[in-house]
Amino acid sequence: MMHTSCPIPKFDFDIITLAHGSGGLLTQRLLEWGVFDLLKNDALLQQHDGAVLEVEQKIAFSTDSYVVAPIFFPGGTIGDLAVNGTVNDLSMCGAAPRYLSLAFILEEGLPVLDFWKVLVSIRDAAQKAGVMIVTGDTKVVEKGKGDQIFINTSGIGYVHPKAYIHHQRIEPGDRIILSGPVANHGIAIMSRREGLEFETTIESDTRNLNIITQQLIEAFGDAIHFMRDPTRGGVATVLNETARQTNWGITLQQQAIPLEEQVEGACEMLGLDPLYVANEGLFLAVVNRQSANAFVSMLKAEKGFEQAAIIGTIVEEHPGTVVLHNKAGGRSVVPFLTGEQLPRIC
Amino acid sequence: MMHTSCPIPKFDFDIITLAHGSGGLLTQRLLEWGVFDLLKNDALLQQHDGAVLEVEQKIAFSTDSYVVAPIFFPGGTIGDLAVNGTVNDLSMCGAAPRYLSLAFILEEGLPVLDFWKVLVSIRDAAQKAGVMIVTGDTKVVEKGKGDQIFINTSGIGYVHPKAYIHHQRIEPGDRIILSGPVANHGIAIMSRREGLEFETTIESDTRNLNIITQQLIEAFGDAIHFMRDPTRGGVATVLNETARQTNWGITLQQQAIPLEEQVEGACEMLGLDPLYVANEGLFLAVVNRQSANAFVSMLKAEKGFEQAAIIGTIVEEHPGTVVLHNKAGGRSVVPFLTGEQLPRIC
Repeated sequence: MMHTSCPIPKFDFDIITLAHGSGGLLTQRLLEWGVFDLLKNDALLQQHDGAVLEVEQKIAFSTDSYVVAPIFFPGGTIGDLAVNGTVNDLSMCGAAPRYLSLAFILEEGLPVLDFWKVLVSIRDAAQKAGVMIVTGDTKVVEKGKGDQIFINTSGIGYVHPKAYIHHQRIEPGDRIILSGPVANHGIAIMSRREGLEFETTIESDTRNLNIITQQLIEAFGDAIHFMRDPTRGGVATVLNETARQTNWGITLQQQAIPLEEQVEGACEMLGLDPLYVANEGLFLAVVNRQSANAFVSMLKAEKGFEQAAIIGTIVEEHPGTVVLHNKAGGRSVVPFLTGEQLPRIC
Repeated sequence: MMHTSCPIPKFDFDIITLAHGSGGLLTQRLLEWGVFDLLKNDALLQQHDGAVLEVEQKIAFSTDSYVVAPIFFPGGTIGDLAVNGTVNDLSMCGAAPRYLSLAFILEEGLPVLDFWKVLVSIRDAAQKAGVMIVTGDTKVVEKGKGDQIFINTSGIGYVHPKAYIHHQRIEPGDRIILSGPVANHGIAIMSRREGLEFETTIESDTRNLNIITQQLIEAFGDAIHFMRDPTRGGVATVLNETARQTNWGITLQQQAIPLEEQVEGACEMLGLDPLYVANEGLFLAVVNRQSANAFVSMLKAEKGFEQAAIIGTIVEEHPGTVVLHNKAGGRSVVPFLTGEQLPRIC
């Protein structure tokens, strides 16, 4: 992902020290140097312990910590993930994200330049999603007690008045729609870790989903029964959770699941099942049968969602279980992931 | 601080592993085992990526990450701090805290029993403050890439309709009120680190300030110009920031600043200035001259705030600077802290 070029301002230090987390003059200077200037808005510039906001409707509230390693990877940074991840969690609640908090846990010795690059990516991702960062926090831990940068973002969004999204609304006959190809984010990270990134052009799919999901809710309203972004644990995990929560069955058509050829190849090389690999710019929607085709058509017309597809159906059979119909005509259960497949993927 | 006795439920694992952060079955079981059960409320039990809440007025929004070491200390746990800290940040905005998010970064190898104790302390602190934990996240990092438990809490509170708290409202003649004795939290932590805790009975002052501050706002309204809790960096840092932001001067009367004898002794032994040591249950209020005495009287009548006192005044002289009038009649500048005094104190 290309970020707006943004020259790093002069700073007295090349690395982050414990003193930058002391709450004193150095903390203040670090904030004034980078954070306040890059992310400025009226609420943040209050520089109080919290932001005061006017909110007069139903809101969604969400939190996530980001510990992805490495912090820079093909297609994005931990900063993009931290903004888009929380923006997307709010989007999945049917909300238009509006305000974010931003909290850093920095490891002593972090190069200031790396922190700056992450800040710039946060600024750019926030602008793209149309959200304001209104309050924040910075802590520093000793070398060896953290890992470069951990970020928490929490967010507040306004729930669309037409949204009626809840797993209890899911019923047999509903179609399961996936917004694009699976596994790009996880494979981009793994390629980088395994030193394979020069053999492929696989990039993380990290992106904000708020614009498109608000348009879909505006158009389809309560025909959208459920939405969820398949991040950690991938599509298989979200669908297993959904089957379990609703006690309906889910059937998936393997041939319908979008998967890029080079991602499929990398999955085979790394021994990973793409259905369990994390995504950061993808969503699953459970939509009533009558609206499903129109929903997919609208989605496919948007840039970045051209490969959206109906990948499965909610059924009364095999309650609580996800069954995959494979390309050869066979069937197999898609189990709930039991171990750690890909640590620190987000 | 005594927590409600709460027997740990049976669990298959004694330590946290990376798989507990995978987003799969083990994550689900960890949440169902402890978190959902201990902290249950309707919003959290939605188990969606975010909580949907009804909010129809002016709100405050705040975030903080907690990295205190050790995670258990005289008077509290990292869990108490994480709840009370964000509750108090919202309180300082004049808000009644209502909803919290809760995000863990756990280090692989953490004993499950320690996680359980922290969860219980979070449950108890949330009940005491009257806040609901409505959304959360759990990540696990490899051994040596974190330090037992880091917690982020973000919070939403309703701003009191009579609150009008902003540093721009501060003016010469205003009195500076401190709600109790300084330095107890920081010294409790340092005593534990230095192995001095058996020589003293010093405990962290961690507590929720929302009940008392809402009562004060109800009683004194816009006579309260500013409030702030002097956590990291202590009283000296908050007052320096305030002097700088307002460009007024601040004078402090050393003899008026409440300080427990054993805390003073420990500060001397450790070479620390109590004005720079962190507090977790204390607040500074800047109140107009006419209301200051009544404000202190009301505060002193409340359990835990008996030592509240007027400790200083906003002045036109020495703009941007804090000047301490010491017990011997001398004057000295209280400088902005430049280095790291006490790392990972909160």
